[in-house]
Amino acid sequence: MKTKSVKAFGSESNVADLKQMNINRREVTTKDVEIDILFCGVCHSDLHFARNDWGMTQYPVVPGHEIVGRVTQVGAGVSKYKVGDLVAVGCLVDSCQTCDNCKADLEQYCPEWVGTYGGYDKHLDTTTHGGYSETIVVDEKFVLRVPENLDQAGIAPVLCAGITTWSPLRHWKVGKDSKVAVVGLGGLGHMAIKLAHALGAHVSLFSRSNNKIADAKALGADEVIISTDEAQMEKAMGRFDLIIDTVPYAHDLNPYVGTLNTSGTLVVVGYLGPLDPMLVTVPLIMGRKSVAGSLIGGIAETQELLDFCGKHNITSDIEVIKIQDINKAYERMLKSDVKYRFVIDMKSLKN
Amino acid sequence: MKTKSVKAFGSESNVADLKQMNINRREVTTKDVEIDILFCGVCHSDLHFARNDWGMTQYPVVPGHEIVGRVTQVGAGVSKYKVGDLVAVGCLVDSCQTCDNCKADLEQYCPEWVGTYGGYDKHLDTTTHGGYSETIVVDEKFVLRVPENLDQAGIAPVLCAGITTWSPLRHWKVGKDSKVAVVGLGGLGHMAIKLAHALGAHVSLFSRSNNKIADAKALGADEVIISTDEAQMEKAMGRFDLIIDTVPYAHDLNPYVGTLNTSGTLVVVGYLGPLDPMLVTVPLIMGRKSVAGSLIGGIAETQELLDFCGKHNITSDIEVIKIQDINKAYERMLKSDVKYRFVIDMKSLKN
Repeated sequence: MKTKSVKAFGSESNVADLKQMNINRREVTTKDVEIDILFCGVCHSDLHFARNDWGMTQYPVVPGHEIVGRVTQVGAGVSKYKVGDLVAVGCLVDSCQTCDNCKADLEQYCPEWVGTYGGYDKHLDTTTHGGYSETIVVDEKFVLRVPENLDQAGIAPVLCAGITTWSPLRHWKVGKDSKVAVVGLGGLGHMAIKLAHALGAHVSLFSRSNNKIADAKALGADEVIISTDEAQMEKAMGRFDLIIDTVPYAHDLNPYVGTLNTSGTLVVVGYLGPLDPMLVTVPLIMGRKSVAGSLIGGIAETQELLDFCGKHNITSDIEVIKIQDINKAYERMLKSDVKYRFVIDMKSLKN
Repeated sequence: MKTKSVKAFGSESNVADLKQMNINRREVTTKDVEIDILFCGVCHSDLHFARNDWGMTQYPVVPGHEIVGRVTQVGAGVSKYKVGDLVAVGCLVDSCQTCDNCKADLEQYCPEWVGTYGGYDKHLDTTTHGGYSETIVVDEKFVLRVPENLDQAGIAPVLCAGITTWSPLRHWKVGKDSKVAVVGLGGLGHMAIKLAHALGAHVSLFSRSNNKIADAKALGADEVIISTDEAQMEKAMGRFDLIIDTVPYAHDLNPYVGTLNTSGTLVVVGYLGPLDPMLVTVPLIMGRKSVAGSLIGGIAETQELLDFCGKHNITSDIEVIKIQDINKAYERMLKSDVKYRFVIDMKSLKN
């Protein structure tokens, strides 16, 4: 297969900084779209993957799955996009297309889904490389259309942080009469507030400190509940239809379960691991409550979200950086020192 | 308030055997129905309550919340029942009637619901007493109609074991195309199999041993999966829409979560306590799966179940005992030595 060498930023080991390198992109095949990358959001997963925190990284790794760019070339069989279109690529670049999940537009649960980076690239028999690069070549099925009215940098995080919170909001049917709470105010949490608010829900943020009240309200939260304040937690008992828990480390879910209404659901989107302290079944049984998980979203649902953002003029709150500052950005991200997402201006890679 | 003394069987301390005693029943008020009790099922909760396993028992306690009988008297304002009707009383005899749960026919989640025994009896300012007695007086709102074609002893356990499994089957919309699994083959488990089968679902039983295969199939299971057999568990991965877990002690839910399909739910109905070993979020997130709880069912839903049983001629598999054998029955129940529910023939109390 013919390839093209392009500039990228990646890492060659779990202890190495990211640095400039060259990677190969395939020439477009019949159904492919080649995208000139304009902006790429910086997700916590990028850092985990670069440092092999999940024990599955193959090096070199080129992270990035919040990609916004312009179409520069299309294969002969491409029908959805043409050169010049503003498009995006999220966390997925392929799936089997035949299983029940794929047929139900739930490609993210396909056992054979291919991640935008760190997945298996069947075309080149190598590892897929993400958006910290000049260009990417993706099957049109996994390319999304970006409304032209949106800020191109600000929309990038919607491809992961946005869809990760949108999918549960839609699956659990959040609307005008819904009472939604969000745990954690980071990249995911700030999008959860904006999107739930735009859907017409009453939105509460659980926070451990008073510092975030003004920011949360500016984002669209109706109130902030201080989770360390027993009186406030007591008052919140039995109130929420859906809680989106974005906290990325082990924490006690039991107090939040108590704040669910009858038949309510707490959905974990940020933490992979055992529920420590242990989840107690009593409040689940006594109120038909659920604790669930949810992973990003399917392609159709991501397009629905981009269209919704276009209509409501929603983007992420971001800090734009140069690719050369990515290692510093990772360090700041580890300290939650960002409101609320770094986005790389990919022009910086081209100079 | 005028009362009537009636014979009952109850316990006066957590270490005492149950023995015959007299209790007071109120004379019927405007909306009350007096019921001559014919049969009363024996639930694990009866034993837990008699022995104060949950630390909330007030003595004397008269257990029993799977009650079938005939109406012997009705208050002046009763419209639903007349003398001679075959009726039933389950786990609830009162609720606030004004909260959102009550308005949604979910009286079991009303914060003020009154248990058939061990609850607060507002009429007599004492503790409610259950079905191990000659008669009971209950507001018609909490009295259920029993189809006359059903075996009167066999239908008793439907009032608790039946509704506890029916409610999740209905809430999670089990029907012809559903794949349902049941964990544990006791009073609840055997009803779950019968009811899911009658709803047209494909039904699997998880069991630790081969001993139960023939029984499970006779009850309506399509297959039995031996949970200690790794190959069988591996083959079951990703298959079930709903798992009803009836096991009454702490056990590892993670292998069962693995057998849920995308968006599937495991609902715990038998175990109150912390999930030990800890529940892991990874399979929840990777398949949008839920772990939930569910408590008995509301009055309307219990009536729906009794009507469904009448139509499909479904009753529990039971062993009928005399009230004088209740203490022996408790010992056998502790060893799971019953297929699948003891039911007391209340004639034995009247002689």
